[in-house]
Amino acid sequence: MNTLNETHDPKLRSWVASANEAGCDFPVQNLPFGRFRTARGVEALRIGVAIGDQVLDLRATGLIHTDDMNALMAASPADRRALRAAISAGLAEGSSRQGAWQGALHAQSALEMAVPCHIGDYTDFYTGIHHATTVGKLFRPDNPLMPNYKWVPIGYHGRASSIGVSGQHLRRPLGQLKGAADAPPVLGLTQRLDYELELGYFAGAGNALGEPIPMGEAEQHLFGLALFNDWSARDVQAWEYVPLGPFLSKNFASTVSPWIVTMEALAPFRAPLKRPAGDPQPLPYLDSAANREHGALDITLEVWLQTAKMREAGAPAVRLTRGNAREAAYWTPAQLIAHHTVGGCNLQPGDLLGSGTLSGRKPDEAGSLLELTLGGKNRITLPNGESRTFLEDGDTLTLRGCCERAGAVRIGLGECAGTVLPAVALDA
Amino acid sequence: MNTLNETHDPKLRSWVASANEAGCDFPVQNLPFGRFRTARGVEALRIGVAIGDQVLDLRATGLIHTDDMNALMAASPADRRALRAAISAGLAEGSSRQGAWQGALHAQSALEMAVPCHIGDYTDFYTGIHHATTVGKLFRPDNPLMPNYKWVPIGYHGRASSIGVSGQHLRRPLGQLKGAADAPPVLGLTQRLDYELELGYFAGAGNALGEPIPMGEAEQHLFGLALFNDWSARDVQAWEYVPLGPFLSKNFASTVSPWIVTMEALAPFRAPLKRPAGDPQPLPYLDSAANREHGALDITLEVWLQTAKMREAGAPAVRLTRGNAREAAYWTPAQLIAHHTVGGCNLQPGDLLGSGTLSGRKPDEAGSLLELTLGGKNRITLPNGESRTFLEDGDTLTLRGCCERAGAVRIGLGECAGTVLPAVALDA
Repeated sequence: MNTLNETHDPKLRSWVASANEAGCDFPVQNLPFGRFRTARGVEALRIGVAIGDQVLDLRATGLIHTDDMNALMAASPADRRALRAAISAGLAEGSSRQGAWQGALHAQSALEMAVPCHIGDYTDFYTGIHHATTVGKLFRPDNPLMPNYKWVPIGYHGRASSIGVSGQHLRRPLGQLKGAADAPPVLGLTQRLDYELELGYFAGAGNALGEPIPMGEAEQHLFGLALFNDWSARDVQAWEYVPLGPFLSKNFASTVSPWIVTMEALAPFRAPLKRPAGDPQPLPYLDSAANREHGALDITLEVWLQTAKMREAGAPAVRLTRGNAREAAYWTPAQLIAHHTVGGCNLQPGDLLGSGTLSGRKPDEAGSLLELTLGGKNRITLPNGESRTFLEDGDTLTLRGCCERAGAVRIGLGECAGTVLPAVALDA
Repeated sequence: MNTLNETHDPKLRSWVASANEAGCDFPVQNLPFGRFRTARGVEALRIGVAIGDQVLDLRATGLIHTDDMNALMAASPADRRALRAAISAGLAEGSSRQGAWQGALHAQSALEMAVPCHIGDYTDFYTGIHHATTVGKLFRPDNPLMPNYKWVPIGYHGRASSIGVSGQHLRRPLGQLKGAADAPPVLGLTQRLDYELELGYFAGAGNALGEPIPMGEAEQHLFGLALFNDWSARDVQAWEYVPLGPFLSKNFASTVSPWIVTMEALAPFRAPLKRPAGDPQPLPYLDSAANREHGALDITLEVWLQTAKMREAGAPAVRLTRGNAREAAYWTPAQLIAHHTVGGCNLQPGDLLGSGTLSGRKPDEAGSLLELTLGGKNRITLPNGESRTFLEDGDTLTLRGCCERAGAVRIGLGECAGTVLPAVALDA
């Protein structure tokens, strides 16, 4: 069996040929977990590992004996490493397992993917400091970044039931819209439908209620991450969000990518956490040497848009944004785990912690239309002559992410796509 | 079998003698649902109905064939009414079922109760207008009630994992505390631990994502209600809550009472919804004639405190508050259902919707210490000479509720108790 370090070896190749192609999101160095149904009408979800353009049915390999992803996520770090090493060894070129495992492969294109685990609770953080600053200016011109921002990893609870998987079609939501200062609000369709480019961190083993997870153990409670789109209705948000935060402006839908890339796979792409000079140091419960040295994530993130007209014309999607999580996030996943639990709140396997919108410093690295158009003031022109301030019906919005570093094999996060549907008829 | 109306008949008595005693919370007219384990070490939860000081094991009666409360909650209104009528008939004096059902009874005192259903998502609303006004004054003296309050049933998502059942012992939480304006925050134990007197409304049958529930159908999606204590760390809250709302100040624990009193049982205690003259009318999606006529709930609510010293001295708890939900709540449960789903958010059976703190108009009807002590300024003196601004370690806080009306049998909500434990040692 390979050691954990060997699972990252750039020389490692798979007997699944598509996994060895340049630019592939899922080489044998990645091995992300997801849940699938076959197109043959099988109802129950099974756990799969993406490899090239195939999915390995993990239970069929005999390495696990469950279809419960949350149970797998709760495994000890040692068991997780051992499972990764065993999958890596079995999929490696020359493995004696090739004959037995060949029958456990499905073409990805033939599968229906699901939300990758049961998400008991979902929390959305606000770690993108450039996002917080730009949006803060729009909502509160005189007070963009709150005094607590550099001390508290700001977060709030989100809605778990409405999280769907990539490929989701979401209806444009209704909500209360407030126009002129002296006019009453009206119920209407959001006119400012937006996306948010986020990473979703998945909890592994949880903690008991009342027992905080210290920084030194926080990474052990992280299972992995996926792409996450926190769709937002900005007009609804602006009217409803005081004093208790966003509610209907966010809970109509969120979309997650189907593959959880594990913290083990991400090991070569960890980076130092850099705080700007002059910023306060984190309080001790949010600080550790390991976190300063390699708590951050070096992940390139992109947003792509394909309108209905582009799709009809056979035109490809256009890229709206390209940035890096490392430059965008003020707080690391470990800090989010430590903060979330410091008061005793219990995390459970499969809980989702959104990063918040990961916008870079530069305007074209912004992770939402609210930022790219400065609140709808600067209309974006697309190559086919269309333009956008916010999303229109028929738009497909796709998040992509990947990790690249000299001396390591590129690993991808796959994609997180969603398409805006017109609303149902309004009878209310 | 009794008709639904007959289940409320004041003349109806049970062969369970304790159910006929004056002041009993659980007469045969109530029939609330809960989940229990026997003290005999049986691990699996079973569905029970409270009757007097006993619990009827519902599956043992043969009326249901599941231990899954959420499945029972998802039943159609017609099936729910039929089940209630059958339970009522079987427990009524003279029933031929008495012999068979006698063996399905357990003494409540011998059982361990659980959170009454699986709570997938928990939302906390803010329907207590007197609470919102008083607290608004403390947090924002110049802007107590936000301009959206009388238009939007303000709510936010809460933490489901940390909800426990009455009898819960909760640790005093750690959190960031901000002192003087120019001093950095510190991690410390909350010094302003508070309770919030709420009702918790439980969803029955849900809705599909993207399909709002109109007002006319909202009550059909309500299963029932319980008492709910939204413990709050006020010092943590004041520092963390801008701009995205409360987080660690609330998610360390919440407590719910074990018995869900059904909407069927509450039918005799519905009341007109009165909006003060001059207030805006609700938008059409939040309005219906039925809601105006009997959307509100006539429920008396109380808060009781027993300190450790009182307990040691054998002294009973003292009442801090007595008020009525009808006077406190600006929005009805049906309006909360309609609002929650208007953007397409999907409710699922067992989802919990907190009412927010139900404080009456008068100062002694306040549902939190924050209000009773005006932010800690007015210390409360207890009969034994102790005093409180906020909760201290060892305090047991108990919520109680009941419905009383001339011509109807009193029904109770049971109690929702929690005891504050000292924090664990702080190593962070």
